Amino acid sequence: MKALVYHGPKKVSVDTVPDPKIEKLTDVIIKLTTTNICGSDLHMYEGRTDVEKGKILGHENLGEVVEVGKAVDTVKKGDKVVLPFNIGCGFCANCEHGLTGYCLTCADPKVMPGMAGAAYGFAGMGPYQGGQAQYLRVPYADFNCLQLPPDVDEKENDYVMLSDIFPTGWHSTRLANLEAGQSIVIYGAGPVGLMAAMSARIQGAAQIFVVDGQEDRLALAKQIGATPINTKDGEIGDQIREATGGWGADCGAECIGYQCHNSKGKEVPNLVMNALVDAVKATGQIGVVGVFVPQDPGSDDKLAQKGQIAFDMGKFWFKGQKVGTGQCNVKAYNRRLRDLIHQGKANPSIIISHSLPLSEAPDAYKHFDNRDHGWTKVILKPNAA
Amino acid sequence: MKALVYHGPKKVSVDTVPDPKIEKLTDVIIKLTTTNICGSDLHMYEGRTDVEKGKILGHENLGEVVEVGKAVDTVKKGDKVVLPFNIGCGFCANCEHGLTGYCLTCADPKVMPGMAGAAYGFAGMGPYQGGQAQYLRVPYADFNCLQLPPDVDEKENDYVMLSDIFPTGWHSTRLANLEAGQSIVIYGAGPVGLMAAMSARIQGAAQIFVVDGQEDRLALAKQIGATPINTKDGEIGDQIREATGGWGADCGAECIGYQCHNSKGKEVPNLVMNALVDAVKATGQIGVVGVFVPQDPGSDDKLAQKGQIAFDMGKFWFKGQKVGTGQCNVKAYNRRLRDLIHQGKANPSIIISHSLPLSEAPDAYKHFDNRDHGWTKVILKPNAA
Amino acid sequence: MKALVYHGPKKVSVDTVPDPKIEKLTDVIIKLTTTNICGSDLHMYEGRTDVEKGKILGHENLGEVVEVGKAVDTVKKGDKVVLPFNIGCGFCANCEHGLTGYCLTCADPKVMPGMAGAAYGFAGMGPYQGGQAQYLRVPYADFNCLQLPPDVDEKENDYVMLSDIFPTGWHSTRLANLEAGQSIVIYGAGPVGLMAAMSARIQGAAQIFVVDGQEDRLALAKQIGATPINTKDGEIGDQIREATGGWGADCGAECIGYQCHNSKGKEVPNLVMNALVDAVKATGQIGVVGVFVPQDPGSDDKLAQKGQIAFDMGKFWFKGQKVGTGQCNVKAYNRRLRDLIHQGKANPSIIISHSLPLSEAPDAYKHFDNRDHGWTKVILKPNAA
Amino acid sequence: MKALVYHGPKKVSVDTVPDPKIEKLTDVIIKLTTTNICGSDLHMYEGRTDVEKGKILGHENLGEVVEVGKAVDTVKKGDKVVLPFNIGCGFCANCEHGLTGYCLTCADPKVMPGMAGAAYGFAGMGPYQGGQAQYLRVPYADFNCLQLPPDVDEKENDYVMLSDIFPTGWHSTRLANLEAGQSIVIYGAGPVGLMAAMSARIQGAAQIFVVDGQEDRLALAKQIGATPINTKDGEIGDQIREATGGWGADCGAECIGYQCHNSKGKEVPNLVMNALVDAVKATGQIGVVGVFVPQDPGSDDKLAQKGQIAFDMGKFWFKGQKVGTGQCNVKAYNRRLRDLIHQGKANPSIIISHSLPLSEAPDAYKHFDNRDHGWTKVILKPNAA
Repeated sequence: MKALVYHGPKKVSVDTVPDPKIEKLTDVIIKLTTTNICGSDLHMYEGRTDVEKGKILGHENLGEVVEVGKAVDTVKKGDKVVLPFNIGCGFCANCEHGLTGYCLTCADPKVMPGMAGAAYGFAGMGPYQGGQAQYLRVPYADFNCLQLPPDVDEKENDYVMLSDIFPTGWHSTRLANLEAGQSIVIYGAGPVGLMAAMSARIQGAAQIFVVDGQEDRLALAKQIGATPINTKDGEIGDQIREATGGWGADCGAECIGYQCHNSKGKEVPNLVMNALVDAVKATGQIGVVGVFVPQDPGSDDKLAQKGQIAFDMGKFWFKGQKVGTGQCNVKAYNRRLRDLIHQGKANPSIIISHSLPLSEAPDAYKHFDNRDHGWTKVILKPNAA
Repeated sequence: MKALVYHGPKKVSVDTVPDPKIEKLTDVIIKLTTTNICGSDLHMYEGRTDVEKGKILGHENLGEVVEVGKAVDTVKKGDKVVLPFNIGCGFCANCEHGLTGYCLTCADPKVMPGMAGAAYGFAGMGPYQGGQAQYLRVPYADFNCLQLPPDVDEKENDYVMLSDIFPTGWHSTRLANLEAGQSIVIYGAGPVGLMAAMSARIQGAAQIFVVDGQEDRLALAKQIGATPINTKDGEIGDQIREATGGWGADCGAECIGYQCHNSKGKEVPNLVMNALVDAVKATGQIGVVGVFVPQDPGSDDKLAQKGQIAFDMGKFWFKGQKVGTGQCNVKAYNRRLRDLIHQGKANPSIIISHSLPLSEAPDAYKHFDNRDHGWTKVILKPNAA
Repeated sequence: MKALVYHGPKKVSVDTVPDPKIEKLTDVIIKLTTTNICGSDLHMYEGRTDVEKGKILGHENLGEVVEVGKAVDTVKKGDKVVLPFNIGCGFCANCEHGLTGYCLTCADPKVMPGMAGAAYGFAGMGPYQGGQAQYLRVPYADFNCLQLPPDVDEKENDYVMLSDIFPTGWHSTRLANLEAGQSIVIYGAGPVGLMAAMSARIQGAAQIFVVDGQEDRLALAKQIGATPINTKDGEIGDQIREATGGWGADCGAECIGYQCHNSKGKEVPNLVMNALVDAVKATGQIGVVGVFVPQDPGSDDKLAQKGQIAFDMGKFWFKGQKVGTGQCNVKAYNRRLRDLIHQGKANPSIIISHSLPLSEAPDAYKHFDNRDHGWTKVILKPNAA
Repeated sequence: MKALVYHGPKKVSVDTVPDPKIEKLTDVIIKLTTTNICGSDLHMYEGRTDVEKGKILGHENLGEVVEVGKAVDTVKKGDKVVLPFNIGCGFCANCEHGLTGYCLTCADPKVMPGMAGAAYGFAGMGPYQGGQAQYLRVPYADFNCLQLPPDVDEKENDYVMLSDIFPTGWHSTRLANLEAGQSIVIYGAGPVGLMAAMSARIQGAAQIFVVDGQEDRLALAKQIGATPINTKDGEIGDQIREATGGWGADCGAECIGYQCHNSKGKEVPNLVMNALVDAVKATGQIGVVGVFVPQDPGSDDKLAQKGQIAFDMGKFWFKGQKVGTGQCNVKAYNRRLRDLIHQGKANPSIIISHSLPLSEAPDAYKHFDNRDHGWTKVILKPNAA
């Protein structure tokens, strides 16, 4: 089959590789009809991780079941399913409590003492291949496949967002403990930040602020129903306090991660966290879904090399704030978000800028990595005629 | 009346000062029968805050009502009451939702944009005098006075702990989201850490670890039902993982704050937070009740001067942990903790090492500040015969 | 002043009565600009309660502060405020935990052992007069007055709904534990049921079903964004299961109360509760804000006379459902709902059918009590020129 | 193998039956070392259900794994495991959210529209045989087996209680939303009520009241740390109010079910629920783990035949109470309760009155069903030498 393979920093190509096979009785194989490129793929693409050469990338996957292991109960050949980017077993101490992003069974135990979690085509998340390919092996299929209703024919580009960024944006609002009638400041108008804004709107936020420095992304945020806040217009905390009667926002969402840049284009790893501590009110909560990494040897910043940031702990403590972090447990939300799409109350495909065949993936990686104007979100159609 | 007055770094004396008076119709005056010295008094004593000279210290207060404002409804002359260290109005947007540590009405608005909260005898917490004195003015008396049952005659030394450290220790376990049957690692075996351990025991923790470097405090932790973990016996994370089957503790509590010292006696402000991130399992939560300050000009550490710590954000995020912070909203817990004392299920007075007349307060400050062996917790009896 | 006074079953008139006065130092007096007639006023109007003759009715009140007690801190003459129908003190064991509908200080202690709560112009809820009048005394003004923004000039008819039915409708969805992406079945398309539907929409329900037998009310439900379910079209459980893939709704809201009627117009007190147990899925939760009373001597039903219903306990238990009940603690929600109105995200005035001077109140009671077509919600303007 | 088989009302015998076999690749077979008789077995024994003749009873099971299906990942031959009485798949919409008592995959779909859930040897809970036998087939073994630590050799009689009554007692306190420092009234001092009392003690309840009419059971409640309340000493509500300063208990637990008897031995199905509504304070919550059934043709009570009770809905609503019901999702609690046993903080075996070989099971059923003095809890050792 054809697949997008990582060969080293900024080197990816579409190669012919062996088809995946049923390896365990609880597996299925799916034929991908849509698979996305994610901002976190760029960490690997840029060589900022230790992902191994030869890895097929791609963790945002939707497709049709073509082969079914003998111990699979409810998934059948021909089913149209979307897969959470995290791979869970369903029965370990974490999965059984809904912490499917921290599966102990599927995790690679060598990564870090006490760590857990697995994903398709991802550095440090186990041996699983990704889905930017024609076929994909899905472990624990009964647990990991989410069935899609017949309107998948029209709404496939919405449903594919259930694999990662829609739940991840949603997760940021839950980690922030947003309640209806409150205000939220979302830092970052990339795909996840925009999904966070859509999530906040659906949940009845009274005010939604989206912070970014790029006009085109802010325009999309506005279209989704948020108030754009441009980093060029002054301190974020001041702008937010002015818009909230001096209080600050009720809560905040970090949708950027460690590779955040200041207005001069320099990476400043503590920029967003400290801005949020300032912009959120005393007693408010901050959800962090942007990725931070335990070590970053490639960084210019001494603290960042050790995975540290210079954090405004004193102000954070005085304000009595809370922060929640980590990758999204997709299965915690994906059924309900599917139902919101099905009922016409969510349309996450609004952020797609490009729908391309698999063969154009290497080029798409280049543009996306350059943050080229207009390359908001790329989806791929690996088996399109 | 007699009162303990702050005159500058490490200078306090018991002076004769004017008696407090009813200033607003909702005030009462209490005659103090017990008032404690708190670890956070030492930040002021040492000159590490901007508290003004002439301030009467003392925010852990219990006494008898001797004068009642005309608009007070339920508090009567002769009532024996204990007071939360935080002063709330009961009706602002924060108090009405139980965030009584962040009162907007009683706060000094100059402190910091978006800040809130008031307390007796405390730097940056409004103009209120403390209770290390014979008498104290209590604002919003109906809201702030907690009535005590008749057994106050025997249990006054337990009930006085309801003013701060018992609820504060309890708060750390709630910020940590401890659930019955879980394990918790509490960093710090000072009064608050010991109260956290008692709180965890009452709530049914399966394993309680208390970390400290002082043998006498660890012995007290053991007496309360915890497993002592000595900082001299190796990395905290390693010790905790060994005791929890490799997992780390389910949650953690920070009961030290910014003035934490390493084994050589050097202040290392990020020591405890990063140790807890390491010792707590992936997906676990950390409650921080140790004080961190927004600026600390007196520190040797460059980051600390700006109120920052070098925080292991990458590991924290990868482990998907949460952290909650801030001073305790005492009224969230004090009725129930009172009932636990009344029913014989909590005995916080166990940590008292010294019960002294007010006149010996200056000497007690000196010993307590020196961390002299055996000076765990000092209570004062300002009106003792 | 002029006020609407209860003189016996179905006898109310607008009389001249003495103006209210400041009775306690924490009171204010307001001049009413809008006050509503509520469905629960009809229980008193019809003589189905023991409300005393001479009572001024009216618990949905908005007006301007005209006189201020000496111990009031934050409410000033000229402020435009809306009042929760429940009267709380702010400092009792219930109010301090947000249970302002169950105030122990303001309650009439004779009503029932263990009962609590107070309201304006209401049977069994203390000695307070209602606001269907020109002036109203407001106890504990700092706690009970919610300040309104300048756009009250345009949106007064929306803001007045913050006194009761908008928070009460919202409360039903919170008692039902509705989460975004779920389905809810709301029984009753009266004002509260319609507010429940608006609340569910704001909170991101995937499907909202509103059950009623009156076409005009169902049309309004549809306008608000709900799916109308007509009682004439078959069993409610069957209709809901058909619309939810056989499951039943995720949760339910009871917005009718003890005076519910079957399709033949007969009062059948257990009709709605048992229909909801049937229509809600296993493990689902039901919020009950429709009023049920501890005794109802006027009922034809033997159980109802004792305040009982024949409840499908076996089915309820087998399905592992939960139910939450009681009057709304308005202060738990009114600030955020105010902000939603202010930000243009809620428009509860949509349900108003009639805006009348106080003098027409007796006539309005008659029409409303008859359930005359088109009399959905009446608001009064007691001081209109 | 030998097994206890149901042959009709009050007819059970130990028969030789075929050994269970691996039927699906995800099954294991266990050799039972301990299995209990449960109060809910008596509903079947007495013929008050439609359980089919030939059914092997027994849903409280602990044993050693002797055979393992090919798709099982983590359970191995020789493992000592305890099984939740409910059987879950781990991947359906309910199991994935922790509602393992309402599994959609394992349930018998014919029972009731919208119903769900499966169990070993139970009426209406699917085709699964029980464990009062030498061997048992366990479906979805990775999900359903809880591994036990080496001290199972000494504590097997504690660990076996993790199958049902310890988690079920615990569940009643969670459905009641008990918080540390609160009071709880538990109705019923049978095995589940006693486990509820132990659970409340572990979670730090300030006061625990256990209501019953049998002296020996009340004595056991006292030994566990509760205050016994004898039904012969007057109205429950009055007794509880007197012990709680007139308030009523903060929350309540129903541990009896539909077959509750008044002091004259008559079945009065609404007795306990209405007593709890009376004895619990306004705004309090009630957890119901005693079984109620959707129809009970054998009852003398007309309402009960239809699965209804005459419920004090008016008082319940006026007091703003909540109620939660249903069978326990054992997996929500069993790991943590195992850890409490392992750490020496829980000893549920305290309630065992008889430990017998399987051959004496029919006789034990007779005594237990007669409520013979001293027959509190029977455990069986089906493979004892």
